[in-house]
Parts: sequence; C-alpha cells; structure tokens
Amino acid sequence: MIYFGRRVSFSMGHRLHNHALSDAENRAIYGKCNNPNGHGHQYTLEVLVAGEVDPKTGFSANLPLMDEILRREIVERFDHYDFNADFPEYAGVISSGENLARIFWDLIAPHLPLARLRVEETEKNAFEYFGENR
Amino acid sequence: MIYFGRRVSFSMGHRLHNHALSDAENRAIYGKCNNPNGHGHQYTLEVLVAGEVDPKTGFSANLPLMDEILRREIVERFDHYDFNADFPEYAGVISSGENLARIFWDLIAPHLPLARLRVEETEKNAFEYFGENR
Amino acid sequence: MIYFGRRVSFSMGHRLHNHALSDAENRAIYGKCNNPNGHGHQYTLEVLVAGEVDPKTGFSANLPLMDEILRREIVERFDHYDFNADFPEYAGVISSGENLARIFWDLIAPHLPLARLRVEETEKNAFEYFGENR
Amino acid sequence: MIYFGRRVSFSMGHRLHNHALSDAENRAIYGKCNNPNGHGHQYTLEVLVAGEVDPKTGFSANLPLMDEILRREIVERFDHYDFNADFPEYAGVISSGENLARIFWDLIAPHLPLARLRVEETEKNAFEYFGENR
Amino acid sequence: MIYFGRRVSFSMGHRLHNHALSDAENRAIYGKCNNPNGHGHQYTLEVLVAGEVDPKTGFSANLPLMDEILRREIVERFDHYDFNADFPEYAGVISSGENLARIFWDLIAPHLPLARLRVEETEKNAFEYFGENR
Amino acid sequence: MIYFGRRVSFSMGHRLHNHALSDAENRAIYGKCNNPNGHGHQYTLEVLVAGEVDPKTGFSANLPLMDEILRREIVERFDHYDFNADFPEYAGVISSGENLARIFWDLIAPHLPLARLRVEETEKNAFEYFGENR
Repeated sequence: MIYFGRRVSFSMGHRLHNHALSDAENRAIYGKCNNPNGHGHQYTLEVLVAGEVDPKTGFSANLPLMDEILRREIVERFDHYDFNADFPEYAGVISSGENLARIFWDLIAPHLPLARLRVEETEKNAFEYFGENR
Repeated sequence: MIYFGRRVSFSMGHRLHNHALSDAENRAIYGKCNNPNGHGHQYTLEVLVAGEVDPKTGFSANLPLMDEILRREIVERFDHYDFNADFPEYAGVISSGENLARIFWDLIAPHLPLARLRVEETEKNAFEYFGENR
Repeated sequence: MIYFGRRVSFSMGHRLHNHALSDAENRAIYGKCNNPNGHGHQYTLEVLVAGEVDPKTGFSANLPLMDEILRREIVERFDHYDFNADFPEYAGVISSGENLARIFWDLIAPHLPLARLRVEETEKNAFEYFGENR
Repeated sequence: MIYFGRRVSFSMGHRLHNHALSDAENRAIYGKCNNPNGHGHQYTLEVLVAGEVDPKTGFSANLPLMDEILRREIVERFDHYDFNADFPEYAGVISSGENLARIFWDLIAPHLPLARLRVEETEKNAFEYFGENR
Repeated sequence: MIYFGRRVSFSMGHRLHNHALSDAENRAIYGKCNNPNGHGHQYTLEVLVAGEVDPKTGFSANLPLMDEILRREIVERFDHYDFNADFPEYAGVISSGENLARIFWDLIAPHLPLARLRVEETEKNAFEYFGENR
Repeated sequence: MIYFGRRVSFSMGHRLHNHALSDAENRAIYGKCNNPNGHGHQYTLEVLVAGEVDPKTGFSANLPLMDEILRREIVERFDHYDFNADFPEYAGVISSGENLARIFWDLIAPHLPLARLRVEETEKNAFEYFGENR
C-alpha cells in the first residue's frame, strides 16, 4: 500500500454563524469570525489516497480521474465563492474547518479511495479527517 | 541607511467590481473575481521602513510604534472584515491589489518612514508600491 | 472523530549537554550543538487534538481554551528564554527535540485531548510524539 | 516511542516511460511527463524513524549514522543525476513517485528503523510509504 | 507607478556545459551540474511589471494578456522539457540561471512592461534581472 | 548587469542588551528580547551580488569563491554560537538585526561585489542593507 497526496488551493469567503443561536451567542462563540459580512481564506486541501502500485503505469492512483474530481468537486465548486451565501445546499451548515473537511470528504470519497484529508485554513490552522472509520 | 521589514497577515473578504460598469462588463473584466457574494484571501503585507541605526538602541525603527501602527491601521481595521461591504469610506473603490496597496500606504505613511510596501494576495500575486516618488 | 491542528512558534535558546558526561564525551556526541554558550532556534509546535464535532458550534475543540493553553503552557513559558539556563525544573534534562516534545506533551496533555504533537526545530528536523500509547 | 524526521533535498532528472508500451500508449498515460528528453524536479525526502529516547543522549536516533545513510544512499547517489539514464540497476523501473518512494525505502530501511517516508515531487505532489506492513 | 508581480512555476531539465570547452574543463567549472545526462529543477519565475493604475479597472496590468504571455512564452514552452536537448534555438547557450533569466526576459519584454524578473532555481539560488538599463 | 542571490541559514543565540544602559532601561527598550540568558533564531541570510555574465561560464559570480566566503565568514563563524557571549570582537555591539546586517556586510563585502544583503531573523522580521552608498 502506498499513499499519494495531491494539494489544491482555492479562495473562499465564509462566516462562522449558527442560525439557531442569537446574535449575542454567535458573537460570544465565534468572535470576529462572526462578522456579518464575512471574510475569506486561501484554503489548501491535501487529499491522500491509498493504492497498490499498478505495474503497468507505476501509479497507485488514477491521476487524470483524481485531478478531474478535485477540479470538479472542489476547486470549480468553491473557488471564488462564499460558502455561506452561495450554497443553498449547505444552508444552516456552520462553515467551521471541521465541517468543511467532512463536506469535502463526502464530495470526494465516492470517487477516490480517500485515506486522509487535510484542510489548511491558514498557516496556523489545519483539520485532518480520516472518514468515519477512524 | 538600513531597511527594516515587518510582515503582518490578515484575512479579508473582497469582490472585484466597478459600480460604474454594467454587470456584463464587470464579468468580462474580472471573471470569477466578480462573483456577487465575494470571496476572500489571507493577505500578507510587508512594510519596509528606512532609517539610520540609533547607536543607543541598535534599532533603525521605532519598533513599538511600528507594531502599534500596523496593528491599529491594518490588522485591527481589516482582519475578518469584507472590504467591499464593511468600509463606507472606501465605497466605489475597486478592491484590486493595486488599490489596496495604495490604501495601506496612505494609512501607514503618515506614521512611519515607508520605503516599500508589498501586498501578497496569494502565493502567486504580489503588489509592490514605493509611494508617489518612484 | 476529526483532528484539529494548531501551530505556534517561539524562539528559545538551548545547548545539547549531558551533565553526567565529560566535556569530551559531550563534544563527541553533540558536536557544535554542545557549544558552551548555546545557540537557539525558532521552534514550531503543531498540536493535533481529537474530537467529535459539536453540532452547536461546528467545532471539535474548545478553541479559546486551546489557545489559552498553548499561550500559557508553551509560548509565554518558553519564548525568548534559554531552556538550559532558565528552567531549574528541567535541570539535567537534555534539551533534545525528543525530550522537548515529551515535555511539551506533558504540559499540554492534562488540558487537551492531544492526538499528536510535532516539534519542528529547523526546516530539516522534526519530532513527532503520540504519547505513551503509540 | 518517539519519531524523528529529517529532510533532505536533491535535484534529479526523470521521465515517465514504460518500455513495454508503445510510444502512443506512453504519451496517452503520461502526457508531457513522457517528453523524450525528460525534465526534473527538486525532490524532498522526509524520513521518519521510530525509537525510544536514550537517557544518555536524549536522542531516539543514531543521528550521525542517519545523516551518513541519507547522504550516501540518497543525496550522493541521486543528486544531479537522471534517474532514467544514469542507473542501469533501475532499468525498466518507471520513475513514478510511488516507485521512487519504494526504492528510497529499500535503500534506507536496512540501516534505519524507518516508520514513514514521504517524497515530495513538487509542492502539489507527495507520496507516503510505510513499508509493506501498512 | 505600481508594480504587479506574478509567479509561475515549471519543471525543466538542464545541464551546465560549454561545448567550446573540454570535458575536463567543464567538469572543473561546473562539478556535478555538468553530469552528462543532466538533472532538473522546479523553476519559479516572478515577473514584476510596472504600470499606472487604470481608474476603470483598478488594475495596473493587462492581466489576461499577462497570463497568456507567461503561459505561452514560458510555461508551455519550457515545462517538462530539457533546456539543453529540446531547444535547437538555444544550442550552445549555457543554461546557467543568469542566461535563463535573460532568455526569459527577452521572451516576455516585447509584450509586457517588465521592471524586474526573478528566477529561483532552488530555495537557495535566485537570479534577478532588470534588463539592460540597470 | 545581473544579480545572483544565494541563501544560507544558521542558528545563533543572542540577547538584545546595551551595556551602557541600566537594566531597567534595557528592559524598557527590548522587553523579552532582553531576557538575561538570551534566546536564539534560525537566521537566514540572502546575499545578492552584481556581475556581468562571463560568456565562457555563463556565470556572473565566482560561485566556488562565493560559497567559500559564505561558509567561512558567516556559517562557520556564527552557526551554533551565541553572538553576545562568544565574540569578544563584537563586545558592546547590540545584536539587533540592523547591526548584524552591517557586520555580515563588512565580512562579505571585501571579497564579493555585494549589491544587497537581507537578514531574516524570523518569518516576520527582515533587514535589508545596500551598503553605505544607498
């Protein structure tokens, strides 16, 4: 088994806010991350897929498929959009790094043998997710 | 003369849009950077100030003043805000890196002997400004 | 389970030296890292804590507590100090990255559900510790 | 158990090509990575070795041995060479990151208690290998 | 005047060799950089163009043109090729960073108001060129 | 004219302190940087030398000389030493980045055509010096 990691990067606006809570509660929990008009990050996503090396290609992953999945499911979908304003399908989802990591996982895992996913929100903050099995 | 550079980083939402143009023109010029709900970046700002070394301190810059200016004029003002939505004083200003560099310069230059200012919008885009004299 | 990682950085002086050994033995083992007046590094510490996502906040970690622990137990304690000279409680402890990693773990683990701790001494040297269970 | 990681970097030319396939098949699989005269990368290799801390030295790894192994087995062997043209012993091996990771593992593992090996081909591509046991 | 910098990165094989010199002389001057089958680097190129801010767009540079020039003249031309083997038009040109910087300048300068060009060959080596006027 | 930049990195202990001032004054000016036992940094030094390209070599700088100067004058002299404790020749010199930049310049400039020298003390602090002529 070998693990192939590929990184993509995209810019996305977001705001930490729980609609079920009052403005004061939101402010208390999220501080400036709750500012009404949102802010944004340059997110970096590293996906690690597990595989056996194919003797014919030397590859453990279907690289063209992988790039297509990351482009279609992540970069094209999220780059230069605002998570809170532009995605009705995620209405009510708090855009914490933890929830983003799980959403990205759920978008990618049906197509690729994901072993680990790491979301870097800033140089200081990262989120690692291994799916439900760990 | 010696030059002291200090870097600060902050997250800010923005959208490239010129209110004097039609939606179609904006889209043509700015592409996805014109998406209506904006996106965001982790901006890095490096300011370079010129000075002679003070024999008493070994410093060329008034460091506590410098940190206070960068905190007050830049980080506290812009971090976790949206440039287009949160700053009535900049209404109508297109939030290009070039304009941001000049705005940051105008906020800092009255307080510090600025020699160069560099705004890094992403790892691939940077803007350098030396004031009006160069 | 999801893992949240946060990085802090601090400057600390140190010298590799075992008081139980002769100067010649120390020199033989540690080379220039044994220089009598010490040197220093910009240490980077990444802590990874494990948690379930709290549906109310979207967070897996108590972020304000986490930042407070890292500030109080690590940055405020060690930043701009010399490990060998300033910490009588660690007298006799060899300030190798391995020992530092375990000391940092012991300072943080009582307060946070630590899953992994990574100390980067330089761009070329890193130490990973998972506690005694792995 | 603690893990010590050390990074080395070297420049190496390579070309993705499977001699058992036709030129057209190679081009279809590898695209520009199959260009006949090859290209190159600045490879970064991080090896992680597992060990108990030796109370005498504070080290978990035999550092001089480790540096000697990495120098002799990796940097001196591969730096400024072309993998496809300069290594008859690897004739027919497709120089994918996966295969390189396993070759580096096989060169280092006889000498050091390797726990993980990570090859970074570019800032966007990485390969992690844990040996045959995982 | 403001300066806009944009970075592109590409992988290219090369070998330092002067055909007018003997093999021994080449080896003496270039050391391992003269290895016959070449090696390669991940080159990073930062171009800085000078301009006035256009009040209509907020831009100082014609961004689509700039990206097109960098793609066509640099990345598409050199990425995954070998400088010494694949470019008859540069036969006899020693592929030092200095010469590459001037070649890149000559390819870009007819199309863009270049103010500075920086080629990073490795993390330790960089070349800056300002054209013939400085 | 072309500019060749080369980076070296070394670890050095230091403490900001002016012996001509009282302890209280030192504390007021330098804060934690004045802690009695010092701390340390991983300093990065980038030197930029100016030169014409030699048609015979393609180089603008005498590279072996340059590496020898940087090794002898900087890395071997300062790496793993403490600036304040180990250098009687610099007794009384405040080890600010500004003074270090000038000291490094004075050590290198007699041997190389220095155009710019940049000292990076941390990721946030840098010092640029162009000699006395600018």
